[in-house]
Amino acid sequence: MTQNAENTLKVAHQAFEHFTHGLATGEWQAFLDMLTDDFTFWFPVGKFHGFNQGKERAKEFFEYVCASFQPGIKLVSLDHITSNETTVVFEFRDEGLLLGQPYKNRIAVSFDVREDKICSYREYFGSDGKSY
Amino acid sequence: MTQNAENTLKVAHQAFEHFTHGLATGEWQAFLDMLTDDFTFWFPVGKFHGFNQGKERAKEFFEYVCASFQPGIKLVSLDHITSNETTVVFEFRDEGLLLGQPYKNRIAVSFDVREDKICSYREYFGSDGKSY
Repeated sequence: MTQNAENTLKVAHQAFEHFTHGLATGEWQAFLDMLTDDFTFWFPVGKFHGFNQGKERAKEFFEYVCASFQPGIKLVSLDHITSNETTVVFEFRDEGLLLGQPYKNRIAVSFDVREDKICSYREYFGSDGKSY
Repeated sequence: MTQNAENTLKVAHQAFEHFTHGLATGEWQAFLDMLTDDFTFWFPVGKFHGFNQGKERAKEFFEYVCASFQPGIKLVSLDHITSNETTVVFEFRDEGLLLGQPYKNRIAVSFDVREDKICSYREYFGSDGKSY
């Protein structure tokens, strides 16, 4: 593995730790601190469906996630990590309550890394949110 | 990149080519020929939702895909390829008609490679199927 690929994996791992901490607790600051100013993200459904741009938009999004999932989403298993020089894909399962209803999903998120920050992230759903 | 990682990428590329050919034309034999006998797959929704096992099940699944999408799904763009020693993740966009209605999606598929075959595949949806 090249030095670039190692750095990409290290930065993405740190970001993923902050990301799952945010999902579990609603505390997103550590994750937000790792985003570049020109951060972009894609989300599959709802009011943030499609392409979103900017840290401020990301902040709104994670507040929305936090408000929707009370008391937080738990990481159940981190199943696969696939990476190259610039991108790391995490495949995992999570569960929690979505607007009070039981929620389970298989998720893939791709983090694009630039130096020690995340410049882009794309989320994909592997289930209907009701079971794996 | 190690020899293993190079082989994994090469095999997955070939499988992905057969996969998109299947989506476009309904001809799945070349893709099916690349699956191991103990092939498993995960799909997000519908009658194949969740975990599925075996080549026969895969054949049924691709017949179902073929019947649902007439006259086939077109690959619009292959946006990201991320890989390691065993797994390749393709992020792409496709479009077509789903039961006669316009369909567009952003997709991530993970192919696990064993020697010159695909032993597992996991599909994730990046949109609601109506727009990117």
